[in-house]
Amino acid sequence: MNRPIRILGIDPGSRITGFGIIDVIGREQIYVASGCIKTIKNDELAGRISVIVEHISEIIETYQPTVAAVEQVFVNVNPASTLMLGQARGAAIAALVLRGLPVYEYTALQVKQAVVGQGKAAKEQVQHMVVQMLKLSGTPQADAADGLAIALTHALRNQGLAAKLGGSMIKAGRFQ
Amino acid sequence: MNRPIRILGIDPGSRITGFGIIDVIGREQIYVASGCIKTIKNDELAGRISVIVEHISEIIETYQPTVAAVEQVFVNVNPASTLMLGQARGAAIAALVLRGLPVYEYTALQVKQAVVGQGKAAKEQVQHMVVQMLKLSGTPQADAADGLAIALTHALRNQGLAAKLGGSMIKAGRFQ
Repeated sequence: MNRPIRILGIDPGSRITGFGIIDVIGREQIYVASGCIKTIKNDELAGRISVIVEHISEIIETYQPTVAAVEQVFVNVNPASTLMLGQARGAAIAALVLRGLPVYEYTALQVKQAVVGQGKAAKEQVQHMVVQMLKLSGTPQADAADGLAIALTHALRNQGLAAKLGGSMIKAGRFQ
Repeated sequence: MNRPIRILGIDPGSRITGFGIIDVIGREQIYVASGCIKTIKNDELAGRISVIVEHISEIIETYQPTVAAVEQVFVNVNPASTLMLGQARGAAIAALVLRGLPVYEYTALQVKQAVVGQGKAAKEQVQHMVVQMLKLSGTPQADAADGLAIALTHALRNQGLAAKLGGSMIKAGRFQ
């Protein structure tokens, strides 16, 4: 009997980092938790990075995920924003790897394809599908929903692979 | 009697992160160690971030610095490079704050002003002054020298403040 797979999905942002946690049992995805990590406006970089890494460490401590999936971010037209987003994302991944979690990366296109079934889906459609698939009673905050969507993407892509390969769970993604 | 101040200077880069460690005793700066953290070419992001955070953790464990100083990076003309540099820098600062180190940031201009005495100094002049000030027998690798230059910048800027204020050591910088 395998330990159930618990996926921590992370959507990094320069101001708000969304997260979502789901369990995968067979072909079922079960909601565990979700939320946002908000950094303090106008705080210095080290302060903002502190907030991100401390909260992610706390989330890992509390929910004991077995794997992490992180959204790949787009480069912004504003270079300073791109740098800030990169710093937030680097800090989030650092917190994950320091806790020994395997980290997988998915693009926004892969998230839309996995969750909605087509890459041109609007953000609202992704959020709608997250609510449906996890049988949520309300709509989570947008960043939390994005975190859940990334966790779902990891679950669905591996389920697909597992089905194709006759039931054995294969870990796909960009890094292990 | 105060515990001597041991400064860990970090120059983050997407491929190579330089570091330098110095002790400050009175108005003396004493070389402790320096080197480079090189990530594996073509490795996935989480792998590269792992290398950075694990090596920084190891350096902190070995040398027990009391404070860290990190160079502020410039945004690159290439947005993808800026994102990657941001990620490496975010991971480095995450490793520092996770170990409880106060982190200060200095711009390249501040480093040149502190170490050479003028902001328009060439990179080679900075390296030359690092060798002179720390009485090194050889020239360290460029990234290691940059790490030492940032550590020296923190030492010199605070020494200046301490002198102006009549001897008490004031911690300046952008974050504590």
